[in-house]
Amino acid sequence: MTTNPYNRDLDRNPANHQPLTPLTFLERAASVFPNHTAIVHGALRRNYGAFYARSRQLASALAQEGVGRGDTVSALLANTPAMLECHYGVPMCGGVLHSVNTRLDASVIAFQLDHAMSKIVIVDREFMPLMQDALALATVKPLVIQYDDAEFTAPATATDAQDYEAFLSTGDPDFDWLMPLDEWDAISINYTSGTTGDPKGVVSHHRGAYLLAQGNALTTSMAKHAVYLWTLPMFHCNGWCFPWTLSAIIGTHVCLRQVRAEPIWSALANEGVTHLCGAPIVMSLMISAPEDEKRNLGHMVQFFTAAAPPPEKLLADMKTAGFDVTHLYGLTETYGPAVVNDWHQDWSDLPPAEQATLKSRQGVRYLPLEGLQVLDPETMLPVPRDGKTMGEVMFRGNVVMKGYFRNPIATKEAFAGGWFHSGDLGVRHPDGYIQLKDRSKDIIISGGENISSIEVEEALYRHPAVEIAAVVAMPHEKWGETPCAFVELARGQILDANNLRVWCKEQLAPYKVPGQFVFMPIPRTSTGKIQKFILRDQARDIAQNVTADKTFKAR
Amino acid sequence: MTTNPYNRDLDRNPANHQPLTPLTFLERAASVFPNHTAIVHGALRRNYGAFYARSRQLASALAQEGVGRGDTVSALLANTPAMLECHYGVPMCGGVLHSVNTRLDASVIAFQLDHAMSKIVIVDREFMPLMQDALALATVKPLVIQYDDAEFTAPATATDAQDYEAFLSTGDPDFDWLMPLDEWDAISINYTSGTTGDPKGVVSHHRGAYLLAQGNALTTSMAKHAVYLWTLPMFHCNGWCFPWTLSAIIGTHVCLRQVRAEPIWSALANEGVTHLCGAPIVMSLMISAPEDEKRNLGHMVQFFTAAAPPPEKLLADMKTAGFDVTHLYGLTETYGPAVVNDWHQDWSDLPPAEQATLKSRQGVRYLPLEGLQVLDPETMLPVPRDGKTMGEVMFRGNVVMKGYFRNPIATKEAFAGGWFHSGDLGVRHPDGYIQLKDRSKDIIISGGENISSIEVEEALYRHPAVEIAAVVAMPHEKWGETPCAFVELARGQILDANNLRVWCKEQLAPYKVPGQFVFMPIPRTSTGKIQKFILRDQARDIAQNVTADKTFKAR
Ligand SMILES: Nc1ncnc2c1ncn2[C@@H]1O[C@H](COP(=O)(O)OP(=O)(O)OP(=O)(O)O)[C@@H](O)[C@H]1O
Ligand SMILES: Nc1ncnc2c1ncn2[C@@H]1O[C@H](COP(=O)(O)OP(=O)(O)OP(=O)(O)O)[C@@H](O)[C@H]1O
Ligand SMILES: [Mg+2]
Ligand SMILES: [Mg+2]
Repeated sequence: MTTNPYNRDLDRNPANHQPLTPLTFLERAASVFPNHTAIVHGALRRNYGAFYARSRQLASALAQEGVGRGDTVSALLANTPAMLECHYGVPMCGGVLHSVNTRLDASVIAFQLDHAMSKIVIVDREFMPLMQDALALATVKPLVIQYDDAEFTAPATATDAQDYEAFLSTGDPDFDWLMPLDEWDAISINYTSGTTGDPKGVVSHHRGAYLLAQGNALTTSMAKHAVYLWTLPMFHCNGWCFPWTLSAIIGTHVCLRQVRAEPIWSALANEGVTHLCGAPIVMSLMISAPEDEKRNLGHMVQFFTAAAPPPEKLLADMKTAGFDVTHLYGLTETYGPAVVNDWHQDWSDLPPAEQATLKSRQGVRYLPLEGLQVLDPETMLPVPRDGKTMGEVMFRGNVVMKGYFRNPIATKEAFAGGWFHSGDLGVRHPDGYIQLKDRSKDIIISGGENISSIEVEEALYRHPAVEIAAVVAMPHEKWGETPCAFVELARGQILDANNLRVWCKEQLAPYKVPGQFVFMPIPRTSTGKIQKFILRDQARDIAQNVTADKTFKAR
Repeated sequence: MTTNPYNRDLDRNPANHQPLTPLTFLERAASVFPNHTAIVHGALRRNYGAFYARSRQLASALAQEGVGRGDTVSALLANTPAMLECHYGVPMCGGVLHSVNTRLDASVIAFQLDHAMSKIVIVDREFMPLMQDALALATVKPLVIQYDDAEFTAPATATDAQDYEAFLSTGDPDFDWLMPLDEWDAISINYTSGTTGDPKGVVSHHRGAYLLAQGNALTTSMAKHAVYLWTLPMFHCNGWCFPWTLSAIIGTHVCLRQVRAEPIWSALANEGVTHLCGAPIVMSLMISAPEDEKRNLGHMVQFFTAAAPPPEKLLADMKTAGFDVTHLYGLTETYGPAVVNDWHQDWSDLPPAEQATLKSRQGVRYLPLEGLQVLDPETMLPVPRDGKTMGEVMFRGNVVMKGYFRNPIATKEAFAGGWFHSGDLGVRHPDGYIQLKDRSKDIIISGGENISSIEVEEALYRHPAVEIAAVVAMPHEKWGETPCAFVELARGQILDANNLRVWCKEQLAPYKVPGQFVFMPIPRTSTGKIQKFILRDQARDIAQNVTADKTFKAR
């Protein structure tokens, strides 16, 4: 029995309670602005009326193939119109969208298809060989649909797969699509990038996707009719929910098959792009493009960056190039960005270097994230706001995943103590802004002292000849671990280990100066993240050789 | 047993599910931008840190007085900082905010206090005599707290009431405020303005307030740090949720005790106001201000208007004066505006009169409203999109009220058939935009034909000498009803009934031309709405006299 009088005879009913879902954004966009351009792709211009009709057709065709609530549909697609249609059409028949990173190995894709129990796969013609390899390894036997993108010009090869357009045409553009039964229903599954270990299937729900999609626009003041360039892979955590954000603000998607400087600069100039996202590597790519590929824009462009800590120098370069960069941070487990470096107007009066320092901090919670803390994972108490004491970054709120698919143990661990444990280590500054210092698995422990690999990397990035730097732990006889630096030099630069050692000694406490400097191309994941586990293996090898060497010399 | 694998081991927990509530917006604003100006009131400048601390103090003081979940706290306040604090402080202790229209009669206020079972009343010193009269009539005996606003300069009178600042100081600024137990918990109760009958207590919940507050910003592209002038009474349906919207975008509230042209124009000019809201009467007031009160703004100001249909002429005047007017529509039952005249860029190229015609339509659903329809209330089928066929405007979605307090019968009626029945009559245009034609109780039925009072009013408004027009049904021997027009002329204008009759004959079908034209000041509710029930009484009296007159002459 309730004593609160405001809970009497005031129940939920269909008139006052509906599941939150971003699918309603597209329905609204299509009914209010049917003729507004929703999608640009090469010569293609598709309006919201058509985008919605095609998404419903896809949902209808999938439903006819037996896809229903809780069935997985996998997509191995570039940033194309079909991928946008999948973000609506798949959940519109109750399906769960499984976007697959196009740069994964066939074996990893096979693992994902099996784990996600995929019923249907929709595959770009470019990635058909990869999918065929994966399917040969997988146990599931999904129906295969091939998307033949006009912007992919390589000659066709024979295939048994159904054609995407033919498949679509079996569907009804007026299909009475399914609302989720509950806003807690899954909308997508995304496997983590596997930077730290085995990929896990992160399940997102309609409520969270609705809230984060709106949060993107609200947190960054994205206005009606923004034009968004797809430099961020949509397979990466549903493109941070931007496929849904754009419908909410009746914006325009500019698709892009390949992240190269030339098409980026021409899209920026020719399509009136106002916003784009990407890992810092995308900014490097744009900044380091030959001058004749760069274009004069004449309008301010917003760049949202996340996925890895943006080097201060790069932030300064982007500012000089006239971009307004917003630094975001998040995980697949938080639907994409859930933390924002929320800029204070008066910071813009500071010297550029100080601005870059401030901008390199990850920041504060997104509006739809209810809690963000840096906690001591042992005691679950917040670290002091001193910008020094490290703890684990933890999240709580409506834009935190439903859990890991078919992995109750990992789910339970991730949510221990009522907070989502990110595995990222960071500090909290006196003003409450958080700054990542490392991943828990990347931290270097030397003589009992923690060394943040990011701090050492920042010192290296400040050297004008350094293009990319990555620092990992190298085993050390005396100290346990010591930093080992991997470096890519900027074009035309020459430098040796001694130069860098001297440089680091000027910038860092002695125990933080890397024991080794290795010059080589740095391995990355498909989402632009440095694969530190490969570097760690390498550092281990080097350490063994050094030891061997020393042993030899000592003799 | 569930067969959907995505519902297995993926339950809600505190890390991934929190009640939606706009209270978290203020917590975030205060923690991220503690020094940003939240409130301007005369000489007062209060930042977000202080705003949050004072709201928590209020919550703490209320809790100490025994206010807990589901207890009503009434506020009889002007648009002052205290009113903003109530919007956070009251729900932060679990209380339900009951904002009282300051222009109501004591008897109506007494009815509301009793019906809402008010525990505490917070009263502006200006309205203390009114509250004392109301309390003398009421059965409840709430604790009375008096707010002594520095901007209210009339001499003090003796009172037993506790002083608001003294009361606040008993509270803890670090109070560990209460999240709602469920996002469905009530946050406020607002009595409808009583235009159509007995006021009903509309209960709003945290979820709806969160969504509509965000919807305001998203639907109208309100950006970070907007400056909002309080021309809309906050007691009117929680100021359409803008007290919460502003915290979401870290904006600044500019308070205003009185809606007069001079302080409005000076606030616009001196405080850098970017947004303000109000019924069309507020626009009239601004436009018809003496030239020496108007100010040169030098920046674009957004005016959101709702509450009554804005006359086309006024929309055109506002455009000429350099304002960007957005036309919204909603009800207390929908948290304020839930429908927006979402503007198409190419409409701006049309001639001004056509633009005003387009802008006078109420429009399309807000982003957080899931359904908006014009239905035949008998069949519950949508009317054709012909701009002609009338039906009842109905709403469905998350920004529809919880229900009417202690009134299950009215609640059930309002939600019949799974849609909220607005009581507004309208049409749907071919492009899907709705346009109100009348309230179901205001429609005039003449010889079996429906006459929209709004259509007749529009014809009158087009006459340059007409300042305000209101048309109601007058009983008629032969036709059942006929329109009766009440008119206020613009300053210095002279006109008689014959002039207007000729004018109307040029504009309207013969049966729509009013039978009578009455020149007099038109009675309005405190929210600027014309009180048609008073005019209807008057029209009935006139009809009787006319009949008496005829009878007399016929003899
Ligand atoms: N702005 C940022 N600055 C620094 N690191 C970031 C930023 N944004 C994201 N990251 C890193 O990316 C991680 C989230 O990446 P994602 O979810 O794509 O997969 P992953 O964590 O790399 O893979 P896995 O969980 O399988 O190891 C964060 O935990 C954080 O370490
Ligand atoms: N843009 C608009 N154009 C025309 N009418 C409007 C507009 N916005 C609001 N209204 C009118 O205002 C009504 C909502 O007003 P509100 O909830 O304040 O009380 P009320 O309906 O006047 O009072 P009551 O329900 O007690 O009769 C709507 O139902 C509609 O008739
Ligand atoms: Mg991870
Ligand atoms: Mg009403």
